[in-house]
Amino acid sequence: MSASYRYLPALLWASGALALFPDCVNGPLKNETICDTSASPLDRARSLVALYTLEEKINATGSTAPGVPRLGVPPYEWWSEGLHGIAGPFTNFSDEGDYSYSTSFPQPILMGAAFDDQLITDVATVIATEARAFNNANRTGLDFWTPNINPFRDPRWGRGQETPGEDPYHLSSYVHALINGLQGNSLDPYKRVVATCKHFAGYDIENWNGNFRYQFDAQVSQQDLVEYYLPPFQSCARDSNVGAFMCSYNAVNGVPTCADPYLLQTILREHWGWTNEEQWVTSDCDAVQNVFLPHQWSPNREQAAADSLIAGTDVNCGTYMPDHLPAAFAQGLVNESIIDQALIRQYSSLVRLGWFDPPENQPYRQLDFSAVATNASQALAYKAAVEGIVLLKNDGVLPLSLDSSTSLGLFGDWANATENLLGNYYGVPTYLHSPLWAAQQLNIAIQYAQGPGGQGDPTTGSWLSIWPAADASDVIVYVGGVDNSVEEEGNDRVSLTWTGAQLDVIGQLAGLGKPMVVVQMGGGQIDSSPIVNNPNISALLWGGYPGQDGGVAIMDILTGKAAPAGRLPTTQYPASYINEVPMTDMSLRPSANNPGRTYKWYNGTAIFEFGSGLHYTNFSASITSKLQQSYAISDLMQSCNTTYLDRCPFASVQVEVTNDGKTTSDYVTLGFLAGSFGPQPYPKKSLVSYQRLFAIKGGSSKTATLNLTLGSLSRVDEKGNKVLHPGDYSLLIDNGPLVSVNLTLTGSEAMLDKWPQPPANRTRKGVSGFSDYFVGGYGSDQVPM
Amino acid sequence: MSASYRYLPALLWASGALALFPDCVNGPLKNETICDTSASPLDRARSLVALYTLEEKINATGSTAPGVPRLGVPPYEWWSEGLHGIAGPFTNFSDEGDYSYSTSFPQPILMGAAFDDQLITDVATVIATEARAFNNANRTGLDFWTPNINPFRDPRWGRGQETPGEDPYHLSSYVHALINGLQGNSLDPYKRVVATCKHFAGYDIENWNGNFRYQFDAQVSQQDLVEYYLPPFQSCARDSNVGAFMCSYNAVNGVPTCADPYLLQTILREHWGWTNEEQWVTSDCDAVQNVFLPHQWSPNREQAAADSLIAGTDVNCGTYMPDHLPAAFAQGLVNESIIDQALIRQYSSLVRLGWFDPPENQPYRQLDFSAVATNASQALAYKAAVEGIVLLKNDGVLPLSLDSSTSLGLFGDWANATENLLGNYYGVPTYLHSPLWAAQQLNIAIQYAQGPGGQGDPTTGSWLSIWPAADASDVIVYVGGVDNSVEEEGNDRVSLTWTGAQLDVIGQLAGLGKPMVVVQMGGGQIDSSPIVNNPNISALLWGGYPGQDGGVAIMDILTGKAAPAGRLPTTQYPASYINEVPMTDMSLRPSANNPGRTYKWYNGTAIFEFGSGLHYTNFSASITSKLQQSYAISDLMQSCNTTYLDRCPFASVQVEVTNDGKTTSDYVTLGFLAGSFGPQPYPKKSLVSYQRLFAIKGGSSKTATLNLTLGSLSRVDEKGNKVLHPGDYSLLIDNGPLVSVNLTLTGSEAMLDKWPQPPANRTRKGVSGFSDYFVGGYGSDQVPM
Repeated sequence: MSASYRYLPALLWASGALALFPDCVNGPLKNETICDTSASPLDRARSLVALYTLEEKINATGSTAPGVPRLGVPPYEWWSEGLHGIAGPFTNFSDEGDYSYSTSFPQPILMGAAFDDQLITDVATVIATEARAFNNANRTGLDFWTPNINPFRDPRWGRGQETPGEDPYHLSSYVHALINGLQGNSLDPYKRVVATCKHFAGYDIENWNGNFRYQFDAQVSQQDLVEYYLPPFQSCARDSNVGAFMCSYNAVNGVPTCADPYLLQTILREHWGWTNEEQWVTSDCDAVQNVFLPHQWSPNREQAAADSLIAGTDVNCGTYMPDHLPAAFAQGLVNESIIDQALIRQYSSLVRLGWFDPPENQPYRQLDFSAVATNASQALAYKAAVEGIVLLKNDGVLPLSLDSSTSLGLFGDWANATENLLGNYYGVPTYLHSPLWAAQQLNIAIQYAQGPGGQGDPTTGSWLSIWPAADASDVIVYVGGVDNSVEEEGNDRVSLTWTGAQLDVIGQLAGLGKPMVVVQMGGGQIDSSPIVNNPNISALLWGGYPGQDGGVAIMDILTGKAAPAGRLPTTQYPASYINEVPMTDMSLRPSANNPGRTYKWYNGTAIFEFGSGLHYTNFSASITSKLQQSYAISDLMQSCNTTYLDRCPFASVQVEVTNDGKTTSDYVTLGFLAGSFGPQPYPKKSLVSYQRLFAIKGGSSKTATLNLTLGSLSRVDEKGNKVLHPGDYSLLIDNGPLVSVNLTLTGSEAMLDKWPQPPANRTRKGVSGFSDYFVGGYGSDQVPM
Repeated sequence: MSASYRYLPALLWASGALALFPDCVNGPLKNETICDTSASPLDRARSLVALYTLEEKINATGSTAPGVPRLGVPPYEWWSEGLHGIAGPFTNFSDEGDYSYSTSFPQPILMGAAFDDQLITDVATVIATEARAFNNANRTGLDFWTPNINPFRDPRWGRGQETPGEDPYHLSSYVHALINGLQGNSLDPYKRVVATCKHFAGYDIENWNGNFRYQFDAQVSQQDLVEYYLPPFQSCARDSNVGAFMCSYNAVNGVPTCADPYLLQTILREHWGWTNEEQWVTSDCDAVQNVFLPHQWSPNREQAAADSLIAGTDVNCGTYMPDHLPAAFAQGLVNESIIDQALIRQYSSLVRLGWFDPPENQPYRQLDFSAVATNASQALAYKAAVEGIVLLKNDGVLPLSLDSSTSLGLFGDWANATENLLGNYYGVPTYLHSPLWAAQQLNIAIQYAQGPGGQGDPTTGSWLSIWPAADASDVIVYVGGVDNSVEEEGNDRVSLTWTGAQLDVIGQLAGLGKPMVVVQMGGGQIDSSPIVNNPNISALLWGGYPGQDGGVAIMDILTGKAAPAGRLPTTQYPASYINEVPMTDMSLRPSANNPGRTYKWYNGTAIFEFGSGLHYTNFSASITSKLQQSYAISDLMQSCNTTYLDRCPFASVQVEVTNDGKTTSDYVTLGFLAGSFGPQPYPKKSLVSYQRLFAIKGGSSKTATLNLTLGSLSRVDEKGNKVLHPGDYSLLIDNGPLVSVNLTLTGSEAMLDKWPQPPANRTRKGVSGFSDYFVGGYGSDQVPM
């Protein structure tokens, strides 16, 4: 999405036209197949599109579709948002009373840290249910441009907070759970809402040193594409039946994604079997324009519109297709069958959402505001925050022992955070409970002083009120870090450090010699080594963007009302990391100018590894399943006969987890594979399964089941093929690990997925007079030293 | 200054305490020497400081000085701003009526383009006069933290707009004229106001890829320091008697400037003779803190405060000295004589401003709001804008021939600009006349459509209203470019291009085949080659940030009511330039990873050279002075016997300039020296003198006098010594040049200025646990890629 909220006033202008329904009872269409509920969605959509003139078809390609008044087809706004609650420029909250708020969950980066797929399905179900209630009140759409499921490749990425983390398996599992919740059961006659997997593909730079997302050409090997950038999208399309995709601003290997038939047709639709006509692709806003300038893929505007439509972009966020397709048709650049196909996809999707059907038979159409912000939803928002928060350091001071005589000092920018709790893409939350608010419910004395604001500014002049407050405190909690002033849409971070001002203040507070806890907030990790290494700082938590009840979740963990069990969903790199690799270098594997990316490949020492997270107790684990020491690949393949061989089961591994301490606690069971198999270099390890266990009491055990598939064991070769290899494998439980088991695969390698190769000779046409103009955008090799 | 306006609400809290005066008639001080107007400022200041306790002295080191109530010394706020009109967080405009506005001039980058020193003195006189009126009403201070006189070294610099340009001679001459206006005649008993030359030194990066200004260590050779970074400051201190300096956030060659006795004592005070005790140095806000973190020059807070005070920082913008000097004194890190010296400098300065004196005898104390925003001041603001605007392309369509039947189309973000006209550091202008407002005064039909806003965003959806307006236009004027959304304090630019969206729209407008003019706005240059190369675009102007009457100035030039004669004060580089050199590379001369900086050294082809600027007529020139073909260096030196040998006159060169066309026009006479003399490599050429001639009628001539000194002929060696060399010299008039004359210097080289060398063994102490933490800041060699 573009920096959308900037345009809110202009865009809301059109919002009165939202979510009206066609009149299939008395309207002009009543006798057409589109209104025949017994016909297939495809036939129904075809019948409607057949009634349109070319001009009406072209008008329908923009995201704010005007409809066709003569046919009784109302306007429809395709752009709604639902990243962690309904949101976005076209969602219309009322000023007060009903529909003036909804449930606002934590940002995905914190929900990812919960490693709890059921939680994600539950959250998504609430979001979609609330969306339906708002839609019934004509306040939002039926399709939502969520999730952002690009892997969080580089810690600088300003939108990494919108994703569940850096690991492709984790994201694939998370997004499957999410889509199930958003869309409902795919066998149901009506979809709850349509989800949109974005940004397809290779989009994870906002603006690195002049490499703007609108012009960046991501140079990605087929191996990295299949192994890292595409798995979440494969999960969406192939394994989760998602209703929509969004192509991205950037180009991949020279081709803007919205004009790339290799991505949109060969991979997405053909290779992944995403061929149901009710599935459509929208462009990011206004990515079709960028196909002309600055990408210069197409030499003029009408060709850019035509190239995008032909490649498989069915909806254009913005107005570029409606503006320039008339000229494209006039010049014969595109056939009417292509635009028909786009519209058939759009209307098939709306049929599956019940847009043309009588409301009486649609349970979703009965929902009203009583379904919004229910007690259960509020509890779920709290639960999501608690589950995600990660304990990174604890010398034993946590949980805090507070009694009525304790004076608790609460400092830092985030101590009284309000909107900051929500990150970005948020609607109106039910409430905003800051850490300060939560502390004030504890019936103890609170010493509070505001932080300085301004991530980039070193001035501590405005911190003065801290010192008397700190002197009066028995225990000090500092809540700070980063926020959307330094990581946001359009802006990548340029530093992984705490600001000098914050570290100065934290150091002075620590110098007081009192029990002291630091809570590191924000989506991207900061190098917290100065806090880890300071012996006067007792504990460190990471709190992400914890949503409407985030302050309560933090205080409950600090005070022991809840036990922390979240795990870092990204690597916490040392601050120097970003000086070792340009953000534009898309390679995962280490090389001369790249120390490697993610826990799989980074060859330095992380401050905190992916998956890090302490508890208020200790856990041990044992693998109780019997695994063979050796497996013949031929046997594995023989018993595998599904369409997609990587999905064939390999083993269900039972892991018994014992709480060896006293405090009841959840435990996230992480299963990694490591070993020597497939093409070198080998990753250090790879996450292949996870399960969160709940409320394990001290001295008792629970069992996790880690389901491994043939895909879990596979490696991707340089051409993108997924192959099973003979070799030595270790299944590791948790970082450390707590326990591991070895096994061997024998025999000859076997192909699990043969990857379609990109066509040759794809070069941009260029635009007259612009040859070297947008210099920032053509790959990291051209970025300066 | 820090990103100050963000803190406006917090800071204004203190503003009620501004500008009270000590009571020397009835107050406790009435019999002390400080109140004796017959005593010297130094003796008066000494007598006051002698009355202070150590605690009172320490309290006086912060910029918001609380005063000493028991002595009747009122609070004084050292921080006022006056970059192009009174401004800043502590200047208090009333809501309406008197003191609710003042005169807002163009940004210095546009006033620099006028190359008119008298204009600068006149503007500065107005600013200081209005400041005095506001001070008399207790609404601003008496010292102003202006000018920003760091050379505009790299086109990315977000604050380059605050400077007059890239050339050190130009800046030196400009700042001399400015200080004369701000401070008044140095022989007068009272100063008009005190000016503050900032940021000393080597400060011209906000944030390049994580190299924050607060932590950046500028690695500068002594040659570049003397030749490029310091001349404007030498002009301030040695040649213009400026009242104050500001040390900067960054370090130079390892030492944070506010803690650097080599810069603050050896160079500034000793070498440049800035030893009058009424002259003081303030830190940038909160640069003293940065000496601790992130610079880690001093190992703890109290040492940072002590090191800064001892080095010669007399005022601490912020609170770090008041906060941490008590501990520094307790630990014996600093002697009381040092703080006495700082306070004596402060109070001597206030004595010279009349702070302790009876108002009756002070003309400046009689000024009231009738001196603010006078008709003459408004006319001067208009004149400054007209003089600075630069014509870069014209196929003859300019000046526009408009009659009552013409329909003028006015498009782009800047077409109806309001605050954008002012740039940054602005107060409340008398009015804001946008290009649209100015066009509406013309009694012609205006077609206007707003641009999209958002420099980084490519969306043209919000541009829709342009097309019918463009169709209805006979002539199209597009006013756009960059603004403070991409170049601002705290943010350097990451691109030198027009946005794809603007170029798309400009291209579509040009495609209509109507007379079309583009006005490029903003302080930093953008690569306008797509506009230059588009044959359908008739003309290109650069308008900078033209201030309160900027729209009228632009329209008057477009319509021929005024004739353009401004010259680019910076090089317009191709967009690829910033990919060829890291911003952190401070070297001016070309090398393997640096194509060279400024017109003197850049080895590529500029889109527009420094000094570029067309007219509505043509000029020719002849050098009418008789110059010798050859000069003996020994003769030149023999007749030179001032303290500063570089100031000895060499020649006054008369240049007769003839207007060969019909349109009356100003002409900026630029004198460059080129040739083979001194150390290699040789610069392409160097500006050594300039004079603007006014209103030269068609067919007539006027004569400019270019005064050259021995310094004009000198070169700087690797140790920073300024030396006169035998060799061949060419004096070139204008780019082109229009005319030139050659001469030779013979004999042995002669030293004009022997440069003091920095002490050896200056290394930061570091802070425990932080060794490699702030990795962005340690020089360009450590920047990745």
